[in-house]
Parts: sequence; structure tokens; C-alpha cells
Amino acid sequence: MTARDREELLNDRYGDQPKPKQMIWNDHVERLLAHRSVRNFLSEPLPEGALETLVAAAQSASASSNLHQWSVVAVSDPEIKAQLAELSYSGSVGSKATYINEAPVVLLWVADTSRNHEISTNGGGSTEVYDYLDAFLMASIDTALAAQNAATAAESIGLGVCFLGVMRNQSAKVAELIGLPKYAYVTFGMCIGIPDPVRPSGVRPRPRQDVVLHHNSYNSERPTGWLEDYEKAFLQFRELLGMKQKTWAGSVRFATTMPYMDGRENLRDAVEERGYLLR
Amino acid sequence: MTARDREELLNDRYGDQPKPKQMIWNDHVERLLAHRSVRNFLSEPLPEGALETLVAAAQSASASSNLHQWSVVAVSDPEIKAQLAELSYSGSVGSKATYINEAPVVLLWVADTSRNHEISTNGGGSTEVYDYLDAFLMASIDTALAAQNAATAAESIGLGVCFLGVMRNQSAKVAELIGLPKYAYVTFGMCIGIPDPVRPSGVRPRPRQDVVLHHNSYNSERPTGWLEDYEKAFLQFRELLGMKQKTWAGSVRFATTMPYMDGRENLRDAVEERGYLLR
Repeated sequence: MTARDREELLNDRYGDQPKPKQMIWNDHVERLLAHRSVRNFLSEPLPEGALETLVAAAQSASASSNLHQWSVVAVSDPEIKAQLAELSYSGSVGSKATYINEAPVVLLWVADTSRNHEISTNGGGSTEVYDYLDAFLMASIDTALAAQNAATAAESIGLGVCFLGVMRNQSAKVAELIGLPKYAYVTFGMCIGIPDPVRPSGVRPRPRQDVVLHHNSYNSERPTGWLEDYEKAFLQFRELLGMKQKTWAGSVRFATTMPYMDGRENLRDAVEERGYLLR
Repeated sequence: MTARDREELLNDRYGDQPKPKQMIWNDHVERLLAHRSVRNFLSEPLPEGALETLVAAAQSASASSNLHQWSVVAVSDPEIKAQLAELSYSGSVGSKATYINEAPVVLLWVADTSRNHEISTNGGGSTEVYDYLDAFLMASIDTALAAQNAATAAESIGLGVCFLGVMRNQSAKVAELIGLPKYAYVTFGMCIGIPDPVRPSGVRPRPRQDVVLHHNSYNSERPTGWLEDYEKAFLQFRELLGMKQKTWAGSVRFATTMPYMDGRENLRDAVEERGYLLR
């Protein structure tokens, strides 16, 4: 990649906001910075070996106490995908994630302590930790670390991905659909496939680094003008993609209202049903 | 990398267990598979630009609804690091993570909805979603996705990392130490630095892929002999590194008892105090 290409990557990511003054560039960093979510796929299946490659990358992520607390269900059956698309939306606002049908494979990333629960139970041991929030959170975090590695591996072999938080909107039904045992829940999904070159997606801008990066302690005074600067970058991105104009702050305000949740307000009940008491 | 090197990567990751039959290799996949946690560091500071590079990579990860719900506090002050090392252990079992002091920088990854809470509050809007489990979980997941990208970027520029789940053992005190506002909590930490070549670490083996990978629905019947096979790989790894012999199932059984939690049983109270009601 040329210096100009790298500058372009930073322009895509930060727009006209202040950019990192010094970067250490290599192929890996370039690849990570070039990420964009993909929702438009060709109908071709995944290349041979792709799934194994993604899972090997996922398994190579750090694992809390080496406990291996996740699983992944690769859904390629069109009927199950159609049901997942239905379950992506409960009807309050937004719309169904119909691009789930377009993706040749949907990965359902499962925080999965059922294996270890079995091991402890079979050994006559305690399983009390699963009553606590931390056990649920730890498995969820490990699932996310694994999934992000899979996403990076996927993009490196020419695939595109899109995370599906909406797989928690009707969490109980998604778990039932794929036959999850207790002590396991779908943390999120991921569409995966070959990006359709005629319907490309864009790189979404992020706030400038000093909004998220703090030194030695948290600085509650936000950088002057950060929100206005970010709104400009956000607007430019939407213009470029021909999207309806709105402010980022407006979308934040919407995301803190109940209609945004579209069923996710029932997640607590759903995971308790799965065995996690979240004490 | 030669075919032999790649074979070696799979041998490190899976030992004598069945290995993925077909992989799609490239530099990125090799880099991901070569991950190992590093706890022994040189005393040198991070190279110029390293932190900016890691944060740019982290910001490039997918973000739920483009909400930017994390922050990262880079701790390089030796006194604060010493306090974090103290707070890594409440005294039940295990020991302090003294390697925190060795790392030139400890990153504290913060699930941070405080910015958006301010935006909604200032706009006179609702903030009810923060009363629900999903809002807490979503921010935690996004934090993990970002952190994993930072880890990948770090390793690509010759640094080593180690995740610190123990930063949740005394969650309330860690939050206080770095002056976190409400609606923010430290999800985990990450040691980062130049690995000490005279005290290298090993690649931890994982269970064979068919233990974690399912097709179209979850198969509750585990692959025959998977645990015995994994125990062999686990034992070999520990022998190679001159570690005390124990079984993996034994460590799982320990990790499901209360002494393992070492303070993390109080996480629920700590995050409620931070504003997350987890309804």
C-alpha cells in the first residue's frame, strides 16, 4: 500500500477530524483499518476451507483461564436462515435483517459454558459460579474475542462480514431454533460471504482518538468540539452513500429509547431461562 | 512462511488432535494462529506511534449501531500499575498479577456508555435502555471486539499482550482508581509491551474444531473422545513449558467453584453502582 492509500484509510476512518499523528503501518494494520460491514453478498458458497480457517483463527484468540467457553453454529440451510431473518425483528421499529438470507453462511456465536458445566457436574463438583454475572460476562467476552478474530481472518481471504446484534432481539426463540442446551446463549450472529462488488459498502467514520483514549486516568471532560467534528464526518459518510440525512446525536438519542430494543428488553429473562442467574 | 511452518502452527494449536483438513493460508491467518499470551516484558516503553496504531485498529472494529460505546485508559504510571497489580487479587486463591508492573503499558478497556448517556440526557431524552441487561452487554461486546483488534495490531508490530480478566475481581476499586464516571466499567485489562525473548511463552492448545463448530443446529452430543484427546494436548503443553502437571478437567472443575471468582462474585453490585441495573 502506498503512503497515499494509507492516508486514504485514515481519511475514511476519521474524515476531517484530527488524525493519529504517528502510525506504525504494515499489512495487518492496513487490513484492520480497512474494515467495513458487508450486507450485500454474491450467492456463491464460501470457498473450501474458509470455515475451518475462521474457526482456527477464532480458537487462537485469548480464552479466559483457558476455559474454551464458546461455540459457533454455522447456518447455511436456507430455511433456517429465513427463520433467523424473521427472528431479527419483533415488530417495534426498524425492519427485518433480510440480508441474512443473502449471506451464504450465518455464524451464530454462542457463549457456551454447557461443556464445562457437564464436566463439573459429572465430576460431582460445584457449578455455583454460573449463578453469577461474571461467569455469563466472561463467556460473552471470550465469544466476542473469538468472533473478531474470525472476522479478521474472513476479510483477509476476501470475504465480508456483518455482525448481527439483532440475534438477541428474540433470544429465547433463536436458542430454541438451533437446539441450544442450557448454559449457552447466542451472543450475536455474523453474516458472511463474498461481497457483491456492484453493491459496495462504506467505511464508517469513528470519533477522533482523544475521545476514546485516556492516559492513566479517565478524563470526563470531553475534547472541545468533538461532537460537532464527528457530526461532520458522519454527515459526509451518509452523503457519500446516498443515505437519508440525520445527526449522529439523533441516532444516539433514539438508541437510548425503548423502541430501539425491539425485544432485547427480554434478554434478561431469556438468559435466566438458559441457566444464568446473573447474581 | 513455509508449509512446514504452517504445519507447526497447527501442531502448536491442536497438538495430536485431529486438525482442520483444509486451511486458506495468508500472512494474516498465520499471524492470528501464532497468538500466545505474553506476561514477560522488556522494560522498554512502547515504540512511538504504537498506541495510536492500536487505537485506530480498535476503532475499526464493528460497533453496534455505530454507537461507539467503549473507551480505553492507557496506564503507564508505575504507581497506578502497582495499584492495579494489588487490585488483581482479593486474597482467596491464586496470586497477584505482578506482571502488570513489568508491562510498560496496561490498557484498561472500558465499556463506556457515559458519552451517549450525556448526549441523551442533554437532549432531554430517555435513557431507559441502560436499565436493561442488553445495553450493558452490548457495550461489553463492542469493547471486546475493539480490544481484540488492538491485540492483533499489537502483535503485528512486534508487541505481546495478555488479557486481564482479573481487572473485574475488585471492579469497584478499579473504577474508582481511574476516576470512571457512571455508566462505564472496566470490562478487562490488557498488558502490553515488548516480549522478553529470554522468557518466552507458549501457544496454548485448543480443543479440536468439531468440539466448537456446529452445522445448522447445535449438536449436544460431544465428539467421541474429545476430552481425552484434549487432555493429552494440554499435558504436552504443560510438560513443554515445565509447568506443574494437572488435568484440564481439573482446572475446569476448579473454575466452577467460588474460590476461583476471587471477588468477581461482587461484579453485579459493582456494575449496578455504576448505573447498570441489568433488568
